[in-house]
Amino acid sequence: METIFTEKHHLRNSKFELFGGELVEPFERPSRAEYIIDRVRQVGLGPVSDPDDFGMDPILAVHDAGFVEFLQTAWTEWVAEGFKGEALTTVWPARRMSTRIPRHIEGKLGYYSLACETSISDGTWEAAYAAAQVALTGAERIRQGATSAFALCRPPGHHAAIDMFGGYCFVNNAAVAAQHLLDKGAKRIAILDVDFHHGNGTQDIFYDRNDVLFLSIHGDPMDAFPHFLGHEDETGTGAGEGYNVNYALPPGTDFPTWRAALTDALARVAEYGPDVLIISLGVDTFETDPISFFKLTSDDFTTYGADIAKLNLPTLFVMEGGYDIDEIGINAVNVLQGFESGA
Amino acid sequence: METIFTEKHHLRNSKFELFGGELVEPFERPSRAEYIIDRVRQVGLGPVSDPDDFGMDPILAVHDAGFVEFLQTAWTEWVAEGFKGEALTTVWPARRMSTRIPRHIEGKLGYYSLACETSISDGTWEAAYAAAQVALTGAERIRQGATSAFALCRPPGHHAAIDMFGGYCFVNNAAVAAQHLLDKGAKRIAILDVDFHHGNGTQDIFYDRNDVLFLSIHGDPMDAFPHFLGHEDETGTGAGEGYNVNYALPPGTDFPTWRAALTDALARVAEYGPDVLIISLGVDTFETDPISFFKLTSDDFTTYGADIAKLNLPTLFVMEGGYDIDEIGINAVNVLQGFESGA
Ligand SMILES: [Zn+2]
Ligand SMILES: [Zn+2]
Repeated sequence: METIFTEKHHLRNSKFELFGGELVEPFERPSRAEYIIDRVRQVGLGPVSDPDDFGMDPILAVHDAGFVEFLQTAWTEWVAEGFKGEALTTVWPARRMSTRIPRHIEGKLGYYSLACETSISDGTWEAAYAAAQVALTGAERIRQGATSAFALCRPPGHHAAIDMFGGYCFVNNAAVAAQHLLDKGAKRIAILDVDFHHGNGTQDIFYDRNDVLFLSIHGDPMDAFPHFLGHEDETGTGAGEGYNVNYALPPGTDFPTWRAALTDALARVAEYGPDVLIISLGVDTFETDPISFFKLTSDDFTTYGADIAKLNLPTLFVMEGGYDIDEIGINAVNVLQGFESGA
Repeated sequence: METIFTEKHHLRNSKFELFGGELVEPFERPSRAEYIIDRVRQVGLGPVSDPDDFGMDPILAVHDAGFVEFLQTAWTEWVAEGFKGEALTTVWPARRMSTRIPRHIEGKLGYYSLACETSISDGTWEAAYAAAQVALTGAERIRQGATSAFALCRPPGHHAAIDMFGGYCFVNNAAVAAQHLLDKGAKRIAILDVDFHHGNGTQDIFYDRNDVLFLSIHGDPMDAFPHFLGHEDETGTGAGEGYNVNYALPPGTDFPTWRAALTDALARVAEYGPDVLIISLGVDTFETDPISFFKLTSDDFTTYGADIAKLNLPTLFVMEGGYDIDEIGINAVNVLQGFESGA
């Protein structure tokens, strides 16, 4: 399996994350991608390639133009105000408040975010742009006939909504790749999100559409981030009714329970018959992940990679979360090796 | 003029505020109330009295019961999760997300807040409860015939909405006092908010009602906190249509411009003919306030206090913001002395 990767992910290197009422070193840090690419090379998964540049259009095909402009200018505007820290949201359009977009960067941050643990720092846009190109390049490989590809994206993307960042995500890499494939002729895409957290951004982007089937297996939002999306009764709207499937699982979920949800999800994918399957690959389902509560072991990742391969679909893996950094390379690559062994 | 005050405000003593991407010493700190009560005593404004206890009912008359329970339990739930810092919101029900109330304290914090600069810390509820009793006691003095009273509330209240805290506010002291007066027989109450920031919480509580006329003179939300309420086209809804008046003024506003808005506001109050006028008294309109952008001088506070007195209405002053702490006592008491000189 070919891996698409760029060192530009290092441009996303924020100093702080707001966690537990403190500013701590971000869980989403550059070493995550380093551990993964090291493991890719160590096991000889396949060639590692730089991304091509597809420009802004594929990003603007799924994100609001004002939001994308905000991502490009936020850091400069923040610094111009004389703030000393990184750009962190402090206020947002809450219930019964106005959704007019403020002029001041403090207000714009609130308008264009859905969480405030994640700062915007110098280089964030450049890294997010590069990550989207990684996903697009992976999609192109599939379009050109590869049966699988691994888009080693960083920063991750699945929490990024049409016009909001948060949860370490800025541009929704998986959604950008899916839309690109549709725009290039695919009829149907399935996105299966196996990250511990609900892929609220991906759901948001495709919620009213039936050309993308979105399925997410995640910690119940009653108990887990993002807390305000990912319930099982969210099934899509309009033409998208029935094309959004959430599996919200409780704290302590082990692999047999998780795999039952996966089995159901894969059956739905098979029934849908997509041209391409995109896996939003987060490995924060791991038993010792510091911010999650599922109990998968390293071997389980291999097992479910093989399960996915049974569908015999062209499959693009897009990297999302995973915060037990020492093990992230092993667990992510286990999924890919499991897929190859099962294919 | 009698001042109502309690040392219990010290129970609100959070260590940190999220400002400019850093955790800094809160602008809203105990010394604010100390400077004010010292100045009250220094100039001999009048007697200083402890509040009576009116219990929970007057608070529940304007706030959501689930929100009030949250305020009482949040700190304990937060500590039980093992978080090391104070309770700060990180994620909220953003656009197109669910408003189901999560089980986990991280989710509850987001549901019940509209800003995340403000932590909940040990003692916060007790201080907020006491501040509401201070406002209620001031209201009772007016009801028993006093022509004026000063409720030296801390923490402040005007950003606290029906079911959300933020902007240093937890219980809306002015709203609690207004509702108490109505429940005890008043027909109409006017609340004039002269704090630099829009009184979004007070607007939220009374937006659909005509028994409270709410007027606020503040920094344009396009440029200033709370950013998502306080526009001039927010005029009330239903029976409340026409009973909400916002004056959104630009950066650099000086006293002549500010006073023109006050003159208009006072004319509207006179026309409304309330039984009682409540002033949400913030002095962060001061020229050197660290988080605001109006240009009032200390003498201007005396002048506008006299302007308010010209209405000849029973007037309850409820303390809100003001963050140039060295001058906060002088500026707040200047308003009260101006009022007494003009009465
Ligand atoms: Zn995750
Ligand atoms: Zn204020």
